[in-house]
Amino acid sequence: METLLSPSEEYQPSPALSDTWCSSPVKPLDTPDKNDKRKAVGFVLVHAGAGYHSESKAKEYKHVCKRACQRAVDRLNAGALAVDAVAAALVELEDSPFTNAGMGSNINLCGDIECDASIMDGKTLHYGAVGAIRGIKNPVLVANRLLSEAQKGKLSAGRIPPCFLVGEGAHDWAVSHGIMPCSSEKMATKFSLSAYKRNKRKMEMAEKVESGLNHQTKKKRQSSENDNGSGLLDTVGAIVVDWEGNVASAVSSGGLAMKHPGRVGQAAHHGCGCWAENTRTQNPYSTAVSTSGCGEHLIRTMLARECSAALQSDDAHQALLEAMTNKFISSPFLAGEDCVLGGVIVLRCSRCSDTQPSPDIQAILVEFLWSHTTESMCVGYMSAQDDKAKTHISRLPPGAVAGRSLAIEGGVCRLVEPSTVD
Amino acid sequence: METLLSPSEEYQPSPALSDTWCSSPVKPLDTPDKNDKRKAVGFVLVHAGAGYHSESKAKEYKHVCKRACQRAVDRLNAGALAVDAVAAALVELEDSPFTNAGMGSNINLCGDIECDASIMDGKTLHYGAVGAIRGIKNPVLVANRLLSEAQKGKLSAGRIPPCFLVGEGAHDWAVSHGIMPCSSEKMATKFSLSAYKRNKRKMEMAEKVESGLNHQTKKKRQSSENDNGSGLLDTVGAIVVDWEGNVASAVSSGGLAMKHPGRVGQAAHHGCGCWAENTRTQNPYSTAVSTSGCGEHLIRTMLARECSAALQSDDAHQALLEAMTNKFISSPFLAGEDCVLGGVIVLRCSRCSDTQPSPDIQAILVEFLWSHTTESMCVGYMSAQDDKAKTHISRLPPGAVAGRSLAIEGGVCRLVEPSTVD
Repeated sequence: METLLSPSEEYQPSPALSDTWCSSPVKPLDTPDKNDKRKAVGFVLVHAGAGYHSESKAKEYKHVCKRACQRAVDRLNAGALAVDAVAAALVELEDSPFTNAGMGSNINLCGDIECDASIMDGKTLHYGAVGAIRGIKNPVLVANRLLSEAQKGKLSAGRIPPCFLVGEGAHDWAVSHGIMPCSSEKMATKFSLSAYKRNKRKMEMAEKVESGLNHQTKKKRQSSENDNGSGLLDTVGAIVVDWEGNVASAVSSGGLAMKHPGRVGQAAHHGCGCWAENTRTQNPYSTAVSTSGCGEHLIRTMLARECSAALQSDDAHQALLEAMTNKFISSPFLAGEDCVLGGVIVLRCSRCSDTQPSPDIQAILVEFLWSHTTESMCVGYMSAQDDKAKTHISRLPPGAVAGRSLAIEGGVCRLVEPSTVD
Repeated sequence: METLLSPSEEYQPSPALSDTWCSSPVKPLDTPDKNDKRKAVGFVLVHAGAGYHSESKAKEYKHVCKRACQRAVDRLNAGALAVDAVAAALVELEDSPFTNAGMGSNINLCGDIECDASIMDGKTLHYGAVGAIRGIKNPVLVANRLLSEAQKGKLSAGRIPPCFLVGEGAHDWAVSHGIMPCSSEKMATKFSLSAYKRNKRKMEMAEKVESGLNHQTKKKRQSSENDNGSGLLDTVGAIVVDWEGNVASAVSSGGLAMKHPGRVGQAAHHGCGCWAENTRTQNPYSTAVSTSGCGEHLIRTMLARECSAALQSDDAHQALLEAMTNKFISSPFLAGEDCVLGGVIVLRCSRCSDTQPSPDIQAILVEFLWSHTTESMCVGYMSAQDDKAKTHISRLPPGAVAGRSLAIEGGVCRLVEPSTVD
């Protein structure tokens, strides 16, 4: 089995729809060694949040994306389907103390950690999610377990199994299904605790200002609002296509810094945090999407599902550009918002039987893209044939205004079925 | 101000799409007294759940629908907008001990009551929701308060206000915003407690059977599964159009009987429990939808939003019929389900300037429908001009199979602006 990428298929962006976007095609994946006979077909694209990634921490963000891709590819190489591979990538992203998911998640108003996560299987179209769950190191594993339990059918006395559990009930369900609890103290990191203290001070200062006690401080607070990137970073996620051509997606988040306890963001919300649909009669493409950014904006616009639907049209790049412009930045659902923050990773794939490597070969063509309105977005991607993942921190072009402009980039990858490669 | 209904506009259903549906047009609303000068324009449609409504309790279900309509109309007559009127209707539905929402909600696996509710304002497109909230008599009021707080803009230090809160955090937020707590004991009724005991016994029996201890009992349990209608009834809801032509929708539910604690159903899920969108450039109609039924089926199909989108096509009845058939009963998202249980109430409205009562009058034409795959669905409807609401228990036709067939009915109502009536 080999994964081939023709350099001629490097992604060429369409002409700009407006002057609010920038585009820089990334390099194609390495053309694999023709002698490599590993039975590996599949592709993974991950993100470590749309927000602001400082140059000083770029190496760590890229490193965790690389490891997450590798985890997914390891599963694909072991014959796992897309949904298992995507969960494996998420575990790695959650385990990193640098991301806002699982370990090191943002701390809420009461000093606690509550996480959201969801996963969707494009093959069965099942979905599992947890919201505001405490004391579980890998929320995505609970979401994945909900998904797999639901696929087993009804519970005793004909009861429908849940697809979405929250809070204490979600925690107890997880533990009763063999998922180990982990104290909030252990999930907090030096980094998240110092961000919490800083955010708390900021909030107290802002409240003083807002109650008119200290007008002098106001200017200072506003100008220093972007100093703390950590509080702005959100959600991590991944999308995968496996050797059968199935797609899956997942997303996990510690939510907004200083959020109210019980607040659930897009990461637990069907259609908002992630989406995956295999091809079927009406849909020529299989699509997978994972989002990141301000949860409330992503919920109200249902961005994951909107992007998935848009990707059924001819030109993937143009479709995503239009979706991000019309269904997000200029969405009537966010009419009052002057700053719309979010990002997506998307892929779509279709079977094709053309010239590579011979006319009668069935190959899977994967087009993958990311787009964000935030200052930056960290992504990684890898085909099951590659030795290591590519990573990239995408940034808005100089002068572009976060929340009103967008960046869009992507690539293409051809996955060839094993028996067809000599 | 008068509300006029021309008998000629009584709803005429389109030809059947398949043999799985039945249709019986309801009587038109009363033609109002031309001398009635109340400044009242608006319309409300409510439901008290899609499930099974026994003949013996029909009177009570109809009565609560009637009161809910009246509450909404009282608010409309006082000049309230759609979103306030829809919340008022929901409070009445929640307060009834006969419905599965607020007071008398289904009791969960641990003997507790946890409720879901959401509300959407078609004018601002804002949405507020609570999931698995305990100890609050009227969950819709918390959802409504979340909606109105979010419309006020950012919190201190630029934090985004939440649109969706769950569990303990939702309860605490409600109390801190002046909503009185109410113990679960007070929310339980004689009816819900006896249903809980019955369901618990059933579950224990079923689990014994499933572990192979008592094969004799199995047959008995399966044949008696439909005896207890109470456990099947779900979600209540309402949709409203006000004198400005704004639409709003809301939904509230105690969830499935014997659900796992922390389970959140469609009633808290954006796009699944309710939907409301005022007309805008791309949408010729304002639409409002509220759903009821099996939460997991309604989440996975996003039925509220699907129906709303479908209602933008020419023929409302045909559009709803196709949506219920293709996006629900035969949805690829529910491919493995042999019994798809749910119901919707929908309305759409548009401004028209035609023949009633003179050619230059701007009137609002409201087309309203309900459809369900459950045994029955109880609805009520009223225009602000009527003296009292009409109520109806819609049932599948004899021989139709619940979960695989559907019933669809509706009507039409013309709301005429006040200054135009002499």
